[in-house]
Amino acid sequence: MTMPAVSAQPTEAELDALWDACSGANWGRWGADDDRGTLNHLTDEHRLRAAALVVDGVTISLAHNLGVDPTPECPVPAQHHMLAAGDSRDNMNIPGYEASRDYVGTQVHGLGITHVDALCHMFVRGEMYNGRPASDVRSDGARSNTIMTFADGVVGRGVLLDLVAANGRAPLADAAVVTRAELEAAERTLGVEVGTGDILCIATGRDARRAAAGGALNPAHGMAGVHPDCIPYFAEREIAVLGSDGISDPMPGLGITNWIFPVHQIGIAGLGLPLIDNLHLGRLAARCADAGRYEFLFTLGTLRIVGGTGCPANPIAVL
Amino acid sequence: MTMPAVSAQPTEAELDALWDACSGANWGRWGADDDRGTLNHLTDEHRLRAAALVVDGVTISLAHNLGVDPTPECPVPAQHHMLAAGDSRDNMNIPGYEASRDYVGTQVHGLGITHVDALCHMFVRGEMYNGRPASDVRSDGARSNTIMTFADGVVGRGVLLDLVAANGRAPLADAAVVTRAELEAAERTLGVEVGTGDILCIATGRDARRAAAGGALNPAHGMAGVHPDCIPYFAEREIAVLGSDGISDPMPGLGITNWIFPVHQIGIAGLGLPLIDNLHLGRLAARCADAGRYEFLFTLGTLRIVGGTGCPANPIAVL
Amino acid sequence: MTMPAVSAQPTEAELDALWDACSGANWGRWGADDDRGTLNHLTDEHRLRAAALVVDGVTISLAHNLGVDPTPECPVPAQHHMLAAGDSRDNMNIPGYEASRDYVGTQVHGLGITHVDALCHMFVRGEMYNGRPASDVRSDGARSNTIMTFADGVVGRGVLLDLVAANGRAPLADAAVVTRAELEAAERTLGVEVGTGDILCIATGRDARRAAAGGALNPAHGMAGVHPDCIPYFAEREIAVLGSDGISDPMPGLGITNWIFPVHQIGIAGLGLPLIDNLHLGRLAARCADAGRYEFLFTLGTLRIVGGTGCPANPIAVL
Amino acid sequence: MTMPAVSAQPTEAELDALWDACSGANWGRWGADDDRGTLNHLTDEHRLRAAALVVDGVTISLAHNLGVDPTPECPVPAQHHMLAAGDSRDNMNIPGYEASRDYVGTQVHGLGITHVDALCHMFVRGEMYNGRPASDVRSDGARSNTIMTFADGVVGRGVLLDLVAANGRAPLADAAVVTRAELEAAERTLGVEVGTGDILCIATGRDARRAAAGGALNPAHGMAGVHPDCIPYFAEREIAVLGSDGISDPMPGLGITNWIFPVHQIGIAGLGLPLIDNLHLGRLAARCADAGRYEFLFTLGTLRIVGGTGCPANPIAVL
Repeated sequence: MTMPAVSAQPTEAELDALWDACSGANWGRWGADDDRGTLNHLTDEHRLRAAALVVDGVTISLAHNLGVDPTPECPVPAQHHMLAAGDSRDNMNIPGYEASRDYVGTQVHGLGITHVDALCHMFVRGEMYNGRPASDVRSDGARSNTIMTFADGVVGRGVLLDLVAANGRAPLADAAVVTRAELEAAERTLGVEVGTGDILCIATGRDARRAAAGGALNPAHGMAGVHPDCIPYFAEREIAVLGSDGISDPMPGLGITNWIFPVHQIGIAGLGLPLIDNLHLGRLAARCADAGRYEFLFTLGTLRIVGGTGCPANPIAVL
Repeated sequence: MTMPAVSAQPTEAELDALWDACSGANWGRWGADDDRGTLNHLTDEHRLRAAALVVDGVTISLAHNLGVDPTPECPVPAQHHMLAAGDSRDNMNIPGYEASRDYVGTQVHGLGITHVDALCHMFVRGEMYNGRPASDVRSDGARSNTIMTFADGVVGRGVLLDLVAANGRAPLADAAVVTRAELEAAERTLGVEVGTGDILCIATGRDARRAAAGGALNPAHGMAGVHPDCIPYFAEREIAVLGSDGISDPMPGLGITNWIFPVHQIGIAGLGLPLIDNLHLGRLAARCADAGRYEFLFTLGTLRIVGGTGCPANPIAVL
Repeated sequence: MTMPAVSAQPTEAELDALWDACSGANWGRWGADDDRGTLNHLTDEHRLRAAALVVDGVTISLAHNLGVDPTPECPVPAQHHMLAAGDSRDNMNIPGYEASRDYVGTQVHGLGITHVDALCHMFVRGEMYNGRPASDVRSDGARSNTIMTFADGVVGRGVLLDLVAANGRAPLADAAVVTRAELEAAERTLGVEVGTGDILCIATGRDARRAAAGGALNPAHGMAGVHPDCIPYFAEREIAVLGSDGISDPMPGLGITNWIFPVHQIGIAGLGLPLIDNLHLGRLAARCADAGRYEFLFTLGTLRIVGGTGCPANPIAVL
Repeated sequence: MTMPAVSAQPTEAELDALWDACSGANWGRWGADDDRGTLNHLTDEHRLRAAALVVDGVTISLAHNLGVDPTPECPVPAQHHMLAAGDSRDNMNIPGYEASRDYVGTQVHGLGITHVDALCHMFVRGEMYNGRPASDVRSDGARSNTIMTFADGVVGRGVLLDLVAANGRAPLADAAVVTRAELEAAERTLGVEVGTGDILCIATGRDARRAAAGGALNPAHGMAGVHPDCIPYFAEREIAVLGSDGISDPMPGLGITNWIFPVHQIGIAGLGLPLIDNLHLGRLAARCADAGRYEFLFTLGTLRIVGGTGCPANPIAVL
């Protein structure tokens, strides 16, 4: 596949061309009925090799706690409601049976919750990945490209491109826009090469920025992400999934008409590339730095939501 | 640890003694502040060995779809609500940005949803695992023994004891009560030995029974589970987690006063043994039978619910 | 307006003709932009007269408790979740401030919850009242004919047609289908005449049937309602709102192709007649019988849900 | 009943004494089992007289739209989720049946939603109205003093004390604290006298302040309310219910240790006086000013939530 050039200050026409190239390359690539997109790059063989990456047996969660109080990063947080606490542990009226129960609910998307974007999350001009119409996503659930394509889990080689570490530990700016050249430089610096079937996790230091800001960040002040010139890189390297400690797209972005979030728009809808937003990568980055190794076994079991556009998630890295 | 005898028709006094033995053995075993219980049996070394079990790179989900329509097995199902479907994909009013969004919520426990029981889910006489009082589980969330003890995931050796396969493929009765002797016989027949740190999954053929019943089962007609004489077995083998295609405890059970669900009561609160209820084990069982191998890499990333008593889950077996 | 005949066993063609007549009569009647339908019949003058009906100052709720446990009448009940109970009354961490808080949520429609059907609840061949397209009801909320048309309340003359009282207190059958002739006979027997702007409440004795059945009814066994030949009666009498202790339409109904619930379909979408389903009319009926008077001040303040298709409700009768 | 003095800058001891006087006066006043508190002041006779206040037949909603987007006034807004919109109107698979359905849920309390505070909402030193213990409010619902005490509605004489109108239309400051003397002056200016059984609505001009602020207010900048010296006034006048366009208590308040919200604490828990918070009084005030009359028929049908601490509400004034 040949990808068109994307300049430093991309024009709408350039991204239109990139959209054409990406959708042209991947729509139909795995069959007219395919709804797995770049997950097709991740095969049993890749998983087998990924399992062999475990050397310590250590596990690290890549998710944040499910927030239940509104914050600028998560203005509509999750609901965690006790249905029976210790004070009502006998409320089933069964002698000796004492239990607590609860309810949890959440909006799936946004800038705060660690979640997966299924391929039906994004449309470009009314179409989803593989040419499915927006009308497939109905008010009572999506009919195609749903989170159920992940139902048997996402297990494979995780690669961490920690841009802070690659940058000599200098923190990225709040609204940094990371280019393809910087990703490639990070590969060299960190000693890892992104390849077919990888689950690529890009760390911009958001957690460190939040900690430095006293525990709260405001996305209105910017969120680091990748430049649209990285989209051809994701396509050429044939990654299976893209995750980030942000939402992959920078905020406020580059101001390109009709392409506010190119990675979401062209990546998800064009390439069929699922995203994982708002990963917690700080602990993983520390461990990878200590070990001098930026690859690991990535495991994720998504909730089986029929008709869902994504799900809250807690991916686990096994090192 | 020496466990008291549990007879075929157990008395309340026998289970009182079993409770005393189990809580006596494990409360304080890993420190007065411990809230991980038998997860302490699962070490980095076990995980490292478990990763080496992957031979094909195949993944199999061990969860059911999150039900959204009431059934006898799941009378209070999950909620999956679209917030913006294809018809409202432009409702953020950002030119070119077209997205769908949804909400998912669910009660955590019950007889239908595949979920984890954290150690604060059960009490015996007002106490949880490690002697924590029921008052730690407050109406605004639990203060100890929560699902957050699983936050870095449950990854280790999964062992499937498929009682149907062990039984010559003869289906178990709806309300079958499986004894320790039967578990031990299954180990021999299937060629696997349950040991320290294992995530033990017991298949009673519930999925096959449901399919045979036309797609719906009624728990009021019984649900297969294990006899309380298996509790000493779980303790002696030092398993880390117990899962089942039912809820481990049989229904309606053995009619022992004050001990309706002994595995929940004595297992969770006494031993500190987390449960995973309502696993979908049918596909895994078929694969294990084909491969003649009943061990695998088990991976689970639980939702990070602060104060939670459990969570809906999709554990992934990697074979 | 002249309404076509509806025979005892109506044909699809007869109901097609009734649909044409009703939508022909009321679409456009109050302007092309109207979304209040028959609420236009209820004027300040009617309200003023209705207020004068109060003679005792007694109030009676016309709603059922919001069910939170699944039943055959309400398989998807409401959610009532405490957020902070007495045990956590101090969880705002403000000295001396001790409070409890809760959450309530519910599906709006169905066979159990007392609720209002706004005019966007029903469509016939893709159209709502006043010719609005189904596409006005979007996945992020309805754009026309919403519950907000009731925002200033429904206050007016309530008339109770208690068919059990009119019938010499003989209970109606579970699946009784009440005809126009029976409504008119009830008017004569009870000494009340239904007229312009009335909120008509039709009691079929459902609460008494439930009580006689031990507290639970199964709608699959039938639910009493009115024959489609009552629709011309509702139109000619110019009622403003129709309520019932059932859902106005009988179940399983008359088996007419494409017209399973004619009152919902032709009444709501054709006439623009809002419904109130599942009223609790037993206590009101007893009081009306004692007083020998079947009219009262009806008051209802609907929740102000922008984009809503209805709302749970507790109408209050003042006598 | 004799009420102690409350000075302009009240001390903790003064409010302790006021608490003693209020709870001393009203606990037990209507029986040891009473859970209606000052609703007992509102009798059939009062309602009968209130119905006679209707002179125009006009209705005015006293509620705000249920907010669904987070704002400083309502950081945890309601949820309004479509379950089936126009695009899925056929999803019941019944020929000809085309319907939309939705779900609505909300936290009950807070600074934004128009809602009722039931008597179990507040505690003082672990006790509720009439000496009920906080432990009656359990994690699976309250056992006493619940919103069900309002189940047959709140219908009676509404009196509007519009402090802006009484003040020569000069707007109150954001954090104004209104004294008893000002309430009594408003009575004289507006020509209305608050008396037994009244539903007293106090307007501080919050809606006008919000409009002047461009549509949004921030309660952190203050919210007008009444001085605790009004509590004896509420007791002596024997009002049944107190409503306000704020939350009755001013914010940030007077800084009295342990008594941050005296009207909530002493009014609800001591007197048994239910509150209605966040009323929309702007339209009512305009109408009352035009008519030169500040009394009306107040009607409210609360949701029948068993075990509830309050409910979202839309009270309707009939003039």
